[in-house]
Parts: sequence; structure tokens; C-alpha cells
Amino acid sequence: MSNPRTIKVELGQRSYPITIGSGLLGGDFDMSGHLAGADCLVVSNETVAPLYLDALRKNLGNNTVHSIDLADGEAFKTMASVESVVDSLVSAQANRDTTVIALGGGVVGDIAGFAAACYMRGVAFIQVPTTLLAQVDSSVGGKTGVNHLHGKNLIGAFHQPRLVVIDTDTLATLPDRELKAGLAEVIKHGVIADADYFGWLEGNMDALLARDADALAYAIIRSCEIKAAVVAEDEEERGKRALLNFGHTFAHAIENCLGYGEWLHGEAVAAGMVMAAKLSDIDRAEAGRIRGLIAAAGLPVSPPTIAADELRKAMEMDKKVQKKSLRFVLLKSIGNAYVTGEYSESRLNEVLLRGDGRT
Amino acid sequence: MSNPRTIKVELGQRSYPITIGSGLLGGDFDMSGHLAGADCLVVSNETVAPLYLDALRKNLGNNTVHSIDLADGEAFKTMASVESVVDSLVSAQANRDTTVIALGGGVVGDIAGFAAACYMRGVAFIQVPTTLLAQVDSSVGGKTGVNHLHGKNLIGAFHQPRLVVIDTDTLATLPDRELKAGLAEVIKHGVIADADYFGWLEGNMDALLARDADALAYAIIRSCEIKAAVVAEDEEERGKRALLNFGHTFAHAIENCLGYGEWLHGEAVAAGMVMAAKLSDIDRAEAGRIRGLIAAAGLPVSPPTIAADELRKAMEMDKKVQKKSLRFVLLKSIGNAYVTGEYSESRLNEVLLRGDGRT
Repeated sequence: MSNPRTIKVELGQRSYPITIGSGLLGGDFDMSGHLAGADCLVVSNETVAPLYLDALRKNLGNNTVHSIDLADGEAFKTMASVESVVDSLVSAQANRDTTVIALGGGVVGDIAGFAAACYMRGVAFIQVPTTLLAQVDSSVGGKTGVNHLHGKNLIGAFHQPRLVVIDTDTLATLPDRELKAGLAEVIKHGVIADADYFGWLEGNMDALLARDADALAYAIIRSCEIKAAVVAEDEEERGKRALLNFGHTFAHAIENCLGYGEWLHGEAVAAGMVMAAKLSDIDRAEAGRIRGLIAAAGLPVSPPTIAADELRKAMEMDKKVQKKSLRFVLLKSIGNAYVTGEYSESRLNEVLLRGDGRT
Repeated sequence: MSNPRTIKVELGQRSYPITIGSGLLGGDFDMSGHLAGADCLVVSNETVAPLYLDALRKNLGNNTVHSIDLADGEAFKTMASVESVVDSLVSAQANRDTTVIALGGGVVGDIAGFAAACYMRGVAFIQVPTTLLAQVDSSVGGKTGVNHLHGKNLIGAFHQPRLVVIDTDTLATLPDRELKAGLAEVIKHGVIADADYFGWLEGNMDALLARDADALAYAIIRSCEIKAAVVAEDEEERGKRALLNFGHTFAHAIENCLGYGEWLHGEAVAAGMVMAAKLSDIDRAEAGRIRGLIAAAGLPVSPPTIAADELRKAMEMDKKVQKKSLRFVLLKSIGNAYVTGEYSESRLNEVLLRGDGRT
């Protein structure tokens, strides 16, 4: 690929670029022009900061760079973490021209983004995602927030970044399990929006798992393009954006029942996609291809052992609940998804009772 | 006045009416058409709920009405209170169609509004202000948020209500001290935007203090008109809206140094306005009229005893700090205010050192 490559998220005055390339962090790429003022707070975690914070400082030129390292993991995606970021902003005497920069995975991005949304009713925000999942999914689109004891992402805000910087080299340090979790969202993009991309993924899953740089870069670019197009059409999820939740109603219920952090989000999404495909009226062969690609990525194709009524209760609390009736993203075929409140109750029970994806 | 009277806040798709009248709560006024769905959570406090919650329920028809009563006072304008509102929403299985209704003063409105802004990344919100200050100021314009140990309203969001209902009868139960505090913001509207209105206030301050219903209704309507016009022009305070902060840089510093809740917000604004007038290049006679009207309202014309450097430090942390230099709203004359970073340092020191408003 040409290096770096830029994709634009078209949101009128809130439009922003996603810059994707190798060697961006610590290299010539200058981020200072994207800051709102002369100071910033980098929010990272104890795992990522030692690897990339010094490099990122080089991209920020002569600006004043404050930083805070959070504890690592979904269990820390809480209001308490947001408050510790706010405390750091106060200590740094941050004002309305301060920029918050998230350096890390989806959890860091969600916490930092929500703190940026709330501090002085909103300051500038930049995403520097370092996990595949954050690069292809959570860093793009402006969803920020934290978990509540009784539901994932229950407290949050829409707050778009002004820049997303994806250095593909960061994937070199990503644990295998997290790489695979990111591939779940990559597969999702193919399933809901692009059958050709899905086919490409089937042909290149081995290369992706072997961390072939070109294959990973292509997947990140194609996934960001798909996500950017959906977000541009429906920023606040009043319609089409809900398609990105394919598999997520099940996934959030799984995570909620297990306790956050037990399964990675991408793992829960993987199992959730198999369940959603099973609930859909699609060709058995296509359902098999979805299950097959998820299995080829080394991801779970069935949920952990959870009682069906417990799973259902968790789903009903999920925020996709509208007017008290459950809604799902279902498939007509690979590449063709839709949102609906109409589904077979008996098939849902089957999925919940023996949600192991066997057809 | 005709009853009720409606003023519209023009914000495109987010436009909303302010309905002002006598006998609205518990009367024929039907609010159910303004709910997003069939259920709502009324957020009130231990003082206001016993007085008006039952009446409000009548305005909500057959909808499901949940409620939570917060502790009363600025000291409780914290993230902990927001979290307790969120907990109530979760317990009520609130979804994206739930409406949050604030019944109370500015503190209740700010907490409830911020909870509505954050819950599931934003649900519908209605303001039913029951103090004069909330009726003429904080309930209109979509500013929500809570205090941080080191700064007022440091954590918050812009989240417009979809309706504001002002029942002027609620002022009958308002303590004198709070009535006066509300008059500070009323006076502010005259000072910054309308010399005629300021003159009317000079002629009618006795009637307002005696709670003359017609006088109070006129002041509420005129103040809401002024505030609605400013907000319509500059929703997120990038320019003109800052004029509404006249006196507030000083006021927030006073509140911050004293500890929130020691002085009422309106009392601090009153002293802050006298200080801001003194910092302005205006006619001594006009400065005297401002000080005189504030005194006539029974409000403080000088700050409490606070060391000048302590006050200044608190001001610098205030969110009106931009690019590390202090900015103030100053006056050219009564009815004509402007925002500036240019002011006399020596005069500021004088104001801070002997901020007693004597000229």
C-alpha cells in the first residue's frame, strides 16, 4: 500500500481523517497541527504506555504533553477511570483548548473519549488505537462510554475524534488472543456489508493470523472504509449504523453474564455472530461459511455455558432494546444485513438454549 | 399575562418550547405528548418532591412515572448524584425512549440533564424548574453538568431539553433567600442585553420582592426571551453566549474558594457583577445603578473575605480561561456587554484586593 493512506469520515463540520500506515509513531508524521491548543493529555494504560508513549511524544513536537496510565482491561472501563482522567486534566490545568489523546485499545479509547466529551462540556480528542479491534472498529465513529454494573456502555456520549492515527506496526506487539478478537470485527464488516471482502478474508485468513503486514493493512483499510461510510450516513445510530451491532446483542449479553473481561469483546462478538446467523433466514451453506471463517480465525463459535433465561434477561437490558421489544441485526445473505424486531421466538429459544452454532 | 405563554428556543431540529404560566402543575396542561416513549423518570429532591411530585404526575397521564429524590443543595451536584440517577434508570429498565424529567432548581436540572445526556449516550429530557434562578436561567439552553472538587461545572455536556415547563405558582414556596438569588440572574439579563428591561427592574424591584405575580411573570418571560435569543445564536458558547457569564468568572471563584453551597450561586453572581462592572470602563453613574439595583434586591455587593491571590488562582482554573489568559465579560454601558481578554491588570488587582464594589 501507499504509506500512509488516509480515509475521511464525512460528518460535515465534524469530518476527520483516519491516517493508516507503517512507522507513523515516532516517525515524521506530525500530529501537532491537529491539536486544538498547545497542550494535550495522553491517556494510555500500563501495558501500552511503556511500548509507545515515548514514540508518540515525538509526533507531538514542542507541545506540552501530560499523560496518565490506566490499569489495563475491560474491568476498568468504569466511571472511576473517567474520573481519574478528569482529575489528571484538572491537575494539568487543562482548558477548553486542551486535546485528549487515547493511546491504546478500545477500553482506553472509550474512557478517554468520554472524559474528553465531558470535560468542560467537551474538548478535542484524538484516537491512536494500538489493537486491531480498536483500529478497525472502536476508534472510528465517536462512540465513547463506560460500563455500568448492569450493562455495557450504559453511560456515554457521541464525541467524534478530530483525527485517528493507525500505526500498523503496533500490531507486532499485540498478543495473539487480541489479534483474533480484532478479526471478529473484521469478519463482521464483510458479513454485513461486502460479500467480496468476506471472500477475500476466507482466502487470506492464514496470512492475517501470520501477521502478514500487507494483508493486515488491507483489512484495516477496508474495514475503516466500511465503518466510515456507515457512520457518515447515520452518526447517532438512528438507523443504518445499527447494522454494525451484528452479533452484538448476543455478545453484550454474554459479556454481561460472564462479567466483563472474562471473554474479550471480540470473542463474544464471534460467538454472537454465529448465533445471529443462526437466527437469520439465510442459506445453510452461507451460515456454514460464516461459522467456518470464525473458526478459521481461532474464535469461539458458541457461547460459554450460560442459562438461556439469564442470557435473555441480559439481552433485554441491552441498549438495543427499543420500545420494550428485542431487535436484532439479521442477514438476508452474506453482505446484506438488516435490523428487525421480527424473528422466530422458537428459533431464538433454540439459539439461546443450544447456542452452539450447530445447524 | 395570557396563560400559558410560550417562548420558542430556535435550534433547528433541537428547537423546543418554554411554557410559562400559573397553575400548570397538576392542572390541565398535558405533558405526555412531549415524552419520547411511555415511561419517564422524574428526578427531584427531598424538598421539592413532597410539594410538587404528585401534581406533576397528573400532567403525565397514563405514562409510567418512576422517581428519585436527591439530597438538596449544591454540595450534592456531583458525579455520585449522576450515578444514582443512572442507577435509578437501570432499575426502571429505562431504554432509549425513556424521558428524564427534572423537577426542582438548578442543581436538580444540571444533574438530571447530565444523566439524560449520558444514559445510553443520550435520552430525552424535560425541565420543570421550581426556583426563580432555574426558571430564568439554568433550565434554558442545554448546559448540564456537575462540579469537580477543583472547579464548578467541570464535568458536563450540552444536552437540550425538549420542553421547559415553568409554573409561576411554584415561587410561592420558594424561600426569600432563593428568590433573591434568582433575581441576580434577572438583573444580569437587563445589564448585558436590555437597558429598558433594566429600567423596568429598577421600577419594579419592590413588587418582585413582594412576589407580585404579574411582575414575576413578566420578569420570567423577558429573561427567558433574552436567554433563548442568545442560545439560539450560539448554542455551544463559541461566541455570544459567553455574555451570559457576566459576573460569573468572579462568582465561580468565590464559590470555589468558599466551598460550594456556602453562598448561593445567585449571591456570588451578584457580587461578581459588581466586581465586573468595576473592572469595566463605564460611566460611574451606570456602575452605581447596577450596584444600587443589586443592593435593592437584597443581594451582596461585595465578595466575602478571601485573599486576592486565592481568588485569582480559582479564576484561572475557571473554564472561561482560554489559551491560558483570563477573559472577562465587561460592559460598555448598561445593556451593552462584550467578551474580552483585555483589561487593566491594576484595576483587576484592585477589584480582587478590595472587591467591595465601592468606586
